[in-house]
Amino acid sequence: MIRFDSDYMEGAHPRIMERLAQTNLEQTPGYGTDPYCENARALIKAELGNHFADIHFLMGGTQTNATLIGALLRGSEAVIAVQSAHIGVHEAGAIEATGHKVITLPSENGKLCASALEDYLTEFFKDDTWRHMAIPALVYLSFPTELGTIYTLKELEAIASVCKRYSLKLYIDGARLAYGLAAKGNDVTLKDLARLCDAFYIGGTKVGTLFGEALVLKSRSLIPNFFSYIKRSGAMLAKGRLLGVQFETMFTDGLYLECGRIGVQMAMELKAAFVAAGFAPVIDSPTNQQFFELPNTLIDKLKEHASFEYWGARGKESSTVRFVTGWATTKESISELKSLLATA
Amino acid sequence: MIRFDSDYMEGAHPRIMERLAQTNLEQTPGYGTDPYCENARALIKAELGNHFADIHFLMGGTQTNATLIGALLRGSEAVIAVQSAHIGVHEAGAIEATGHKVITLPSENGKLCASALEDYLTEFFKDDTWRHMAIPALVYLSFPTELGTIYTLKELEAIASVCKRYSLKLYIDGARLAYGLAAKGNDVTLKDLARLCDAFYIGGTKVGTLFGEALVLKSRSLIPNFFSYIKRSGAMLAKGRLLGVQFETMFTDGLYLECGRIGVQMAMELKAAFVAAGFAPVIDSPTNQQFFELPNTLIDKLKEHASFEYWGARGKESSTVRFVTGWATTKESISELKSLLATA
Amino acid sequence: MIRFDSDYMEGAHPRIMERLAQTNLEQTPGYGTDPYCENARALIKAELGNHFADIHFLMGGTQTNATLIGALLRGSEAVIAVQSAHIGVHEAGAIEATGHKVITLPSENGKLCASALEDYLTEFFKDDTWRHMAIPALVYLSFPTELGTIYTLKELEAIASVCKRYSLKLYIDGARLAYGLAAKGNDVTLKDLARLCDAFYIGGTKVGTLFGEALVLKSRSLIPNFFSYIKRSGAMLAKGRLLGVQFETMFTDGLYLECGRIGVQMAMELKAAFVAAGFAPVIDSPTNQQFFELPNTLIDKLKEHASFEYWGARGKESSTVRFVTGWATTKESISELKSLLATA
Amino acid sequence: MIRFDSDYMEGAHPRIMERLAQTNLEQTPGYGTDPYCENARALIKAELGNHFADIHFLMGGTQTNATLIGALLRGSEAVIAVQSAHIGVHEAGAIEATGHKVITLPSENGKLCASALEDYLTEFFKDDTWRHMAIPALVYLSFPTELGTIYTLKELEAIASVCKRYSLKLYIDGARLAYGLAAKGNDVTLKDLARLCDAFYIGGTKVGTLFGEALVLKSRSLIPNFFSYIKRSGAMLAKGRLLGVQFETMFTDGLYLECGRIGVQMAMELKAAFVAAGFAPVIDSPTNQQFFELPNTLIDKLKEHASFEYWGARGKESSTVRFVTGWATTKESISELKSLLATA
Repeated sequence: MIRFDSDYMEGAHPRIMERLAQTNLEQTPGYGTDPYCENARALIKAELGNHFADIHFLMGGTQTNATLIGALLRGSEAVIAVQSAHIGVHEAGAIEATGHKVITLPSENGKLCASALEDYLTEFFKDDTWRHMAIPALVYLSFPTELGTIYTLKELEAIASVCKRYSLKLYIDGARLAYGLAAKGNDVTLKDLARLCDAFYIGGTKVGTLFGEALVLKSRSLIPNFFSYIKRSGAMLAKGRLLGVQFETMFTDGLYLECGRIGVQMAMELKAAFVAAGFAPVIDSPTNQQFFELPNTLIDKLKEHASFEYWGARGKESSTVRFVTGWATTKESISELKSLLATA
Repeated sequence: MIRFDSDYMEGAHPRIMERLAQTNLEQTPGYGTDPYCENARALIKAELGNHFADIHFLMGGTQTNATLIGALLRGSEAVIAVQSAHIGVHEAGAIEATGHKVITLPSENGKLCASALEDYLTEFFKDDTWRHMAIPALVYLSFPTELGTIYTLKELEAIASVCKRYSLKLYIDGARLAYGLAAKGNDVTLKDLARLCDAFYIGGTKVGTLFGEALVLKSRSLIPNFFSYIKRSGAMLAKGRLLGVQFETMFTDGLYLECGRIGVQMAMELKAAFVAAGFAPVIDSPTNQQFFELPNTLIDKLKEHASFEYWGARGKESSTVRFVTGWATTKESISELKSLLATA
Repeated sequence: MIRFDSDYMEGAHPRIMERLAQTNLEQTPGYGTDPYCENARALIKAELGNHFADIHFLMGGTQTNATLIGALLRGSEAVIAVQSAHIGVHEAGAIEATGHKVITLPSENGKLCASALEDYLTEFFKDDTWRHMAIPALVYLSFPTELGTIYTLKELEAIASVCKRYSLKLYIDGARLAYGLAAKGNDVTLKDLARLCDAFYIGGTKVGTLFGEALVLKSRSLIPNFFSYIKRSGAMLAKGRLLGVQFETMFTDGLYLECGRIGVQMAMELKAAFVAAGFAPVIDSPTNQQFFELPNTLIDKLKEHASFEYWGARGKESSTVRFVTGWATTKESISELKSLLATA
Repeated sequence: MIRFDSDYMEGAHPRIMERLAQTNLEQTPGYGTDPYCENARALIKAELGNHFADIHFLMGGTQTNATLIGALLRGSEAVIAVQSAHIGVHEAGAIEATGHKVITLPSENGKLCASALEDYLTEFFKDDTWRHMAIPALVYLSFPTELGTIYTLKELEAIASVCKRYSLKLYIDGARLAYGLAAKGNDVTLKDLARLCDAFYIGGTKVGTLFGEALVLKSRSLIPNFFSYIKRSGAMLAKGRLLGVQFETMFTDGLYLECGRIGVQMAMELKAAFVAAGFAPVIDSPTNQQFFELPNTLIDKLKEHASFEYWGARGKESSTVRFVTGWATTKESISELKSLLATA
């Protein structure tokens, strides 16, 4: 069985496992106050070009989103996201559990459009009735999006500019960030994110760590005492150095981007295999998630030897499916997929 | 420097690291639906003697407590705990963040007394005014307690019986469970906990896993669809099998209890060292936390070579301190401590 | 100035003011335990034909919705409502503040369609991915809707039947209930609501009380100890008898329905005035809210002598506006409106 | 039956009922934006000597406390109160429902002591472990307290000064404020409260309004957009002018203080009656709540003709009871009580 269900089916990159083993019996203080976390923060700040950034390591994506959004919003304030956003669809109401509404706007291929955002905000604040409504105070984006697409730098700048004009904060979910940074045609850098966002996170779980996300706040004053928010959310890892060791490794010798590059390269080969078999992708994704419309008969045959995700019906005879590659996808599994497509 | 600050300063037991390395590049489905988690659950159920138990793996103690307590309580319902309880003192208001009050009762050496509980409940429900108050609906205990003490089976049964009489649920925080089970004089077994509690957790973080706690619900009907509570709390590990692998290892060949036994044995040797030096423990703890009253001058000298926790002043010249051992404490570090005490 | 902004611009029906004055210096116990509340509950139960109904008096609509919905839902559970629903749009995130998502479905003239609901639920539960999502557990309707429309008995029965099939609860917001019950063509009775809903409220604020809503739960077992939910929400009126006196008066000699009849009659006269002036309503509302598309020039002229609500632009030259009548609307104000329309 | 259970057993002061009747059929905009509310705010600001104060009218005490405290606190922040505080005991967990802990300190006769507060804060912040705990950020007092006692100006200033030194906010619950202001020996004025507190409320429910509390925030910048917090809490009265009319009346011709004076005068006569009968009060309360220790046999006899509150057992033969007077207590009821005491 070859598996393309998701990018979190394996453990961690071997260099990470190695470092965890090497440091295993060391004794360090807990809760992210150890030297590994300190060093990982320093390495990341250097990449961001922002030495005032406030960096925290959390364990997973939903946890990071809910802790950050819950800490940024007050009272009736709400977060804006596109309809397909992870926080709106796949987090079991974790944002609402912090007491705040997710306002959904339509998207284009999973992306929020600056002008649609501006139109919404203009209409919202046009008179006093907004005082009776949940108040947009934060914009949530994903990079890449749930559909594998990425924003151009110009698009991000346009959104950031609308946010500034209406006093909204901007937050980017980077669960698959490395795959976006490594995408062909991408012109957005970590430095750009650090400059444009109030907060964003550098995803580890889907890009080669065992678990863990590095949340970057623009400055310590954005959320004073964020440590206590993490603790209160049950998101504080006792042995915090496990996260430090992993992100230190990721940001040494460019491993993070390297993991992204492999995932994207494998995705392009996978896409080529489908195109060669006559199936163009239904979304033009330059990252590690690829979407195809396949006949249901073909899907059934593929499923005997491969796993992937059902995404929705397309009429009665075919369906959209999602194939995901990652840092651990092997050339062998792509070859096997090609053979499957050839014989099916 | 020898360290006795806590029992979560090292990584994981070597057998766990080994298994994580062996299984690292396998592909498994996420969120605890993999065969490792299944097997770990089966192993634990066998130990509990309850095949209807509903077992979930979470990442840390505060997270487990808040997710479980938040799921068990409704509306004005509150949880009862002693004043020194972890949920009341050291979880940054995580329980209150779920909307529920922690009612504190006085304790004897960290333990709740069945008769004090009963007196409180009798007084509480004596007339109709309780309808204007937070309503006790759950009792939270720790085994061992924050002071290292343990309940006898008779004491637990008495508390469970009061709970039943007043329709309260009973939950036990087993962050250091193995050290309690391994304590000299302990007469409580996993089977007893499974029988007496509505829910309890078997702590991994402090007993030899990298991280992770195994939460046991008496049955699936206690909290239908508990999976979604975990997800909503941000407590769902994508690569859930990491927890499965760890608890499978822990419950193979008795590793869990073995970790407990080592921690307790080291604690007894540490205690003997202090007693030999003329310092009897201030609390009679049979587990891996030991408390001593030391002259401040001695504390200062010890601190040059050893780390441990300050617990509170005892007059002007001496203080109470806490020393913690664990599964990873070495005979060498105890010997070194003895030398330090001898020379200081 | 004649005012048609809303149905809560005046105080209370004179018979209510009279009863409040008569009983003003009596001494009664608080929190809804007085004889007036008891009698009001008995009168309402008789109308409902359900002597097991559990009836609570709260102070306002948002408060009633949030207290009830927050009490009915657990964990990841969510409430389904149409996009124009009061709970989704005009309650400042009060539902989310209880920790639960409002899932929005499209509507037809403000109404939810049973088949759209069923399609959504079928798709939602089609495979296991729902476990990662907010789970629909309750349907929220308004009768009449935010657009003044009403459900037929058959439509309500169809929705109730879908709810039963998928184990969802059904709740109806009756802020303007009397105007729906009194509408021409309406075939829904209080008894029907009591039979079909798990909970609904009989609105007072917009129908002639000073304030207050009577929340009806199907039975006491639906939410045991609901009293404490009200208290915890800050929704418990100390002098609860004020609500009892008002609802007792409302359900004596048919005052409640009478208030509805007046509001509807005035709305029909208002509609006729617009139709006579050449403006058919844009929504076919048989209740006390009427919507018209008017030229902006006319709107400006009317605004010099009348107040009403702007509802949205319709192209560049005209807009939709809302006129609301109520139990206190006078024939004189309708006549004055006619004159205004004639001269403008 | 003469009733001394509480100070909210009657309706409203006749002058208030009169004004509500006079204004009943006027049409005004909703939600506190009407001229009556505007005027009431102006009258109160004049009394406070703070024209920057931000004044909001809410419906009841628990609602006001929970809305304000929930809006002032963030994340792990907690409110400090004495053990007998209304928010800790009699609000059904409403504060915890906003996600925040109530930290309890011991009291002297219901009062918090500045030095006890300072000791607590010094100990709390003595090292870094506070980051794992709920963080004190607000002090809650009542004036008068739950035991009828009042703070001297000097005591309040001392507490305010500790709050400032540790960056805590200060909030005073004035449910029975008028009875404190009117107490013999009181040296605290509304101007003092306005100067020393970040927020406090002027209670109406227990001092002669039908319902309603006037919440005073030091300035608009304390909680920007507090309107939306009120709405989100379900605490926004549609016909907000009902509150405006009542507080306008209360702050015209000194009615508020007059109500306080009557309640206190009646309490002093009631106390004198008990003292004459040989029962000195157990707490030296100069306000409208009086506490006595009475033989159970006497209690039983009194209960045949009078109602009052049981407060707790004092040994086997006697109990503490509470008698409450108010703006509506009559000289006749005090005389009747005297006769009862004489004959019993």
